[in-house]
Amino acid sequence: MTVEGLIKEKIRQEGRVISDDILKVDSFLNHQIDPLLMLEIGKEFAHRFGGEGVTKVLTVEASGIAVALMTGLSLKVPVVFAKKKQPSTMGTDTYCGQVRSFTREEVIEIVVAGSYLGPTDRVLVIDDFLASGEAARGLLKIIEQAGATLVGFGTVIEKVFQSGGDFLREKGIRVESLVRIGSLAGGQIEFID
Amino acid sequence: MTVEGLIKEKIRQEGRVISDDILKVDSFLNHQIDPLLMLEIGKEFAHRFGGEGVTKVLTVEASGIAVALMTGLSLKVPVVFAKKKQPSTMGTDTYCGQVRSFTREEVIEIVVAGSYLGPTDRVLVIDDFLASGEAARGLLKIIEQAGATLVGFGTVIEKVFQSGGDFLREKGIRVESLVRIGSLAGGQIEFID
Repeated sequence: MTVEGLIKEKIRQEGRVISDDILKVDSFLNHQIDPLLMLEIGKEFAHRFGGEGVTKVLTVEASGIAVALMTGLSLKVPVVFAKKKQPSTMGTDTYCGQVRSFTREEVIEIVVAGSYLGPTDRVLVIDDFLASGEAARGLLKIIEQAGATLVGFGTVIEKVFQSGGDFLREKGIRVESLVRIGSLAGGQIEFID
Repeated sequence: MTVEGLIKEKIRQEGRVISDDILKVDSFLNHQIDPLLMLEIGKEFAHRFGGEGVTKVLTVEASGIAVALMTGLSLKVPVVFAKKKQPSTMGTDTYCGQVRSFTREEVIEIVVAGSYLGPTDRVLVIDDFLASGEAARGLLKIIEQAGATLVGFGTVIEKVFQSGGDFLREKGIRVESLVRIGSLAGGQIEFID
């Protein structure tokens, strides 16, 4: 079975629709994690973006880390995760973005230390979900501040009925979603092939 | 070179002593991550705890995830990361612990959903650092609430001049630290062999 097929099967078996907007897949993706599935996902992103000369994989803590790590492993490049809120040991030379969280109803600051992204970097952004694109917006701002080149955006699950994917594609950014969901209305998960 | 040797070399080359208590290794362990080194670390923990019948690897977001994921990959078991603060989608059936953070000067709540730990689980706790043992205490409380069995605690770097390691060992818990640091006084990193 393809990795896309494996993810869909997992979503069908274990996913829970919380509302018309929210699909909970925390049994394998972002609370409990299936490491073997993550490795296959990482290999798939490495395959899709393999020709892009990626030098860094960038994500945001915490739920993006597992997928990003396996992508970095497969591409043999370092992974950087943006931290939420500035830790006191981080120093002042940082890039910052803002992320609005709909599930938590708050705006948080995300930061990357200046040493780990720069003008020579070709950055692949990886995240578990692409929904309204809030995390993506924050990460784009960080890449822009670093003067780095964005080569694309890879996400495990895209909720195409939210605006994040359109926002990125309209900017000319290459978006690769392993599984695309067209609707969660009425508790039904509708995949788009 | 052994994985312990690789980590020491990285610490010597890239580690920065921020104070007598704090060693910053965010170039390869907990902000930027070296995926290949993480894989070797995961294999080493899997080797050390391989005979313990581990069913789950448990850590706390965000900096423990990379090491825990590679350990879970090598042991072929799921990884669960405790979340800081209860997300609104998590539901009410949760286990909770408290973690005091010295670097951030705050107390945070960590939670694990009830579905992902239970009485039949044999849990290996993995974290990047073992210092005062605050995260370990919070995770022990969660394991206790779940009625699960703790098989041991694996950490990449133990600061033996802080009390976390003693606290765990005095409770009879098996602690495996890949690298042990005896002192950071005067900006010097002193390894214990």
